[in-house]
Amino acid sequence: MNPPRGMRDFLPAEKARRERVLAVIRRRYRAHGFDEIETPVMEDYARLHAGIGGDNEKLAYNVLKRGLDADAIRAAADDPAELADLGLRYDLTVPLARFYASHRAELPAVFRAVQIAPVWRAERPQKGRYRQFMQCDIDIVGDASPRAEAELIVATLDAVDALGLDGSSVRINDRRALDWMLESFGFGADERPGVLITIDKLDKVGPAGVVAELRDRGATPAAVDRFGAFLVRPQTLEHHPFGERQIRKALPEGAPDDVVAHLAGIGEAVAASRPASVEPGGLPLVFDPFLVRGMGYYTGTIFELAHPSVDYSLGGGGRYDGMIGRFLGREVPAVGFSLGFERLVDLIADSADGDERAVVLVHDRDVPLGELLALKAALTGDGARVRLEQRPKNLKALLERAASDGYTSFATVSAGSTVDALELKPLT
Amino acid sequence: MNPPRGMRDFLPAEKARRERVLAVIRRRYRAHGFDEIETPVMEDYARLHAGIGGDNEKLAYNVLKRGLDADAIRAAADDPAELADLGLRYDLTVPLARFYASHRAELPAVFRAVQIAPVWRAERPQKGRYRQFMQCDIDIVGDASPRAEAELIVATLDAVDALGLDGSSVRINDRRALDWMLESFGFGADERPGVLITIDKLDKVGPAGVVAELRDRGATPAAVDRFGAFLVRPQTLEHHPFGERQIRKALPEGAPDDVVAHLAGIGEAVAASRPASVEPGGLPLVFDPFLVRGMGYYTGTIFELAHPSVDYSLGGGGRYDGMIGRFLGREVPAVGFSLGFERLVDLIADSADGDERAVVLVHDRDVPLGELLALKAALTGDGARVRLEQRPKNLKALLERAASDGYTSFATVSAGSTVDALELKPLT
Repeated sequence: MNPPRGMRDFLPAEKARRERVLAVIRRRYRAHGFDEIETPVMEDYARLHAGIGGDNEKLAYNVLKRGLDADAIRAAADDPAELADLGLRYDLTVPLARFYASHRAELPAVFRAVQIAPVWRAERPQKGRYRQFMQCDIDIVGDASPRAEAELIVATLDAVDALGLDGSSVRINDRRALDWMLESFGFGADERPGVLITIDKLDKVGPAGVVAELRDRGATPAAVDRFGAFLVRPQTLEHHPFGERQIRKALPEGAPDDVVAHLAGIGEAVAASRPASVEPGGLPLVFDPFLVRGMGYYTGTIFELAHPSVDYSLGGGGRYDGMIGRFLGREVPAVGFSLGFERLVDLIADSADGDERAVVLVHDRDVPLGELLALKAALTGDGARVRLEQRPKNLKALLERAASDGYTSFATVSAGSTVDALELKPLT
Repeated sequence: MNPPRGMRDFLPAEKARRERVLAVIRRRYRAHGFDEIETPVMEDYARLHAGIGGDNEKLAYNVLKRGLDADAIRAAADDPAELADLGLRYDLTVPLARFYASHRAELPAVFRAVQIAPVWRAERPQKGRYRQFMQCDIDIVGDASPRAEAELIVATLDAVDALGLDGSSVRINDRRALDWMLESFGFGADERPGVLITIDKLDKVGPAGVVAELRDRGATPAAVDRFGAFLVRPQTLEHHPFGERQIRKALPEGAPDDVVAHLAGIGEAVAASRPASVEPGGLPLVFDPFLVRGMGYYTGTIFELAHPSVDYSLGGGGRYDGMIGRFLGREVPAVGFSLGFERLVDLIADSADGDERAVVLVHDRDVPLGELLALKAALTGDGARVRLEQRPKNLKALLERAASDGYTSFATVSAGSTVDALELKPLT
């Protein structure tokens, strides 16, 4: 009687918590000028398997064509595209690219999109990984300037602040800076993707571990030596305050001007948006020249959201100028920031809406139906949330459940009770 | 580049409108003591095809098993259950039954559920019918008394009132009354389901049309005669005010006491909840002895939501005591009311949130990024919603699009503009 493997039911208390978190995120993103859109959960099979989705394409749930007879099924045995014409989306980026191709004439030149919606991946179920989970993405399409990154970062930090997770910060890097750095050490173009996979483990295995793994991989020895020496320069592993001087200091000498200027521009714009935060804790940005992020489609800035209470990221994103225009056949600048909703919702203190009056009316069996509903109507009409319960043997258990569902007070009702005479008692 | 056939994208203005309507419905249902739950969009294939879903089972989208090789596909050619292990839900009732079976120990004895979620049906696409659409269901599980129907009806009327559709009413009947009536006219048990299908057309074809179709069907001639005579009694086609006396008057003589008492009990309870509405327009309930509702699973009360501005129903539901307990192997009383969300959202006037300040800042190309974002931050910090736009050739088109996205004012920004000096102009 359980939901399908790797998927979850949400009972009232948990569902209410999720909706509260989503409402805050929605409200803040909207304030920052992002417009919510929605696409169907299914897309055409061919779009989901066009190479945009990377490894996630293999994890797609495919939807059987309707009306296939046994012969058609046998004929399709060697080609899944003949069996399935649709699939469930595994991310919100492929649908955004399809949406943009379809509707760009009706959208502003710089389009700021919010998508808050579930996605599905047929992953091996494991702790904390689900086959249906929510994604909260904001994307800016049509703006190649650092303003786009800054607007995303400011809106994201504002949303997590509003959720009570203040003190969050964003680690930032640029794929072009990474690529230039690896080239300058002497890694060949074909070995760099593998080198990036190893660098991505720096937080876990440390500089010596990275160097050892690069040697095991058979990476160019002289390049590994130079990179190893750079990794253990005293200052390189410190987190530098954000700004052009600091970016240059954290990179080998001679970093490309355009990349440094783009990163510094993001910093200036974020600083202008959050003047209060400049003092005393400094800008909530950290340049991390070794931040990699897994996905292959990033073309420029990459970033991750961090909070001091946890050692994993709470979201991330980056610039992916090649993807949104794929279905249009031309390049369209685009950058996105995705909140890790499932991780966030677990971190946020479980508080019901503070200003809500929520009353349980516990009634005797003999109270006439009309009296009960008149009491309920008087309270709901006055702005309260009301649940009717017939008095059970175990009143304590009933009240505890109501409290966990967010109810705050209760009153007992006998035949002839009036709303003015109700004695409301706190539930906890 | 379109979404899959029969499915829709929602652009910002339409998505915002849908979310506003959903927020109102959610808030009112919550006030009435209904608790929102969520289940995964997929259920096990066997649950979706257990006979609970009626005709909708044939319309299910089935999800291909992962990891099938060509041999496995050929072997499964004659049995779709071997190809598909999951499917997309086609309603919210099968998932509710599965949810209840799984979690009943954690739920109140009388469980009031809200489900607001999409469902999928592979119907032939036609105007106003979609293959993905929203359902908004409230259900009360575990209460066999008329209180359950009354709570559903009061909550539903309150929700549509809050949406500005006041003046709505509920047509109500009982499947047991229908069945008794047909039996009393002399229709045999095996012909009654077919007779109901014909009666369901009464609004469209009138009494003479119904009688003619019953004769064509070959229904028992004497029963058709008696039914035809009853149909054209002067008062039977009038809408009677709701109450025991009126219910008895609208039915042939000798209607079963328990059914009449249950219906009258609903009326008393609704009247107690909506005292203001009793005067002067009367109770928003209409007894309709010929209301049928298509689905086969109803076991008692049935109802439909009507509004004077349209001649189709805006929602409906009824009692289905046999279904929720199906996966538990025992009968559990249950009654539900489903709002026709897609119809409702089309009826509701398109007004943006009235109290929202939403500002477009139109800036020259040379305004420094930091200045722009500082202006935006000052306004969002002050509670406004803000969109930045670089001044285009066609300013009018840009402002019109912003207005349709819910923006209410704009200001032009030059280098050196300060927030105090901004001149806000209304957009419309």
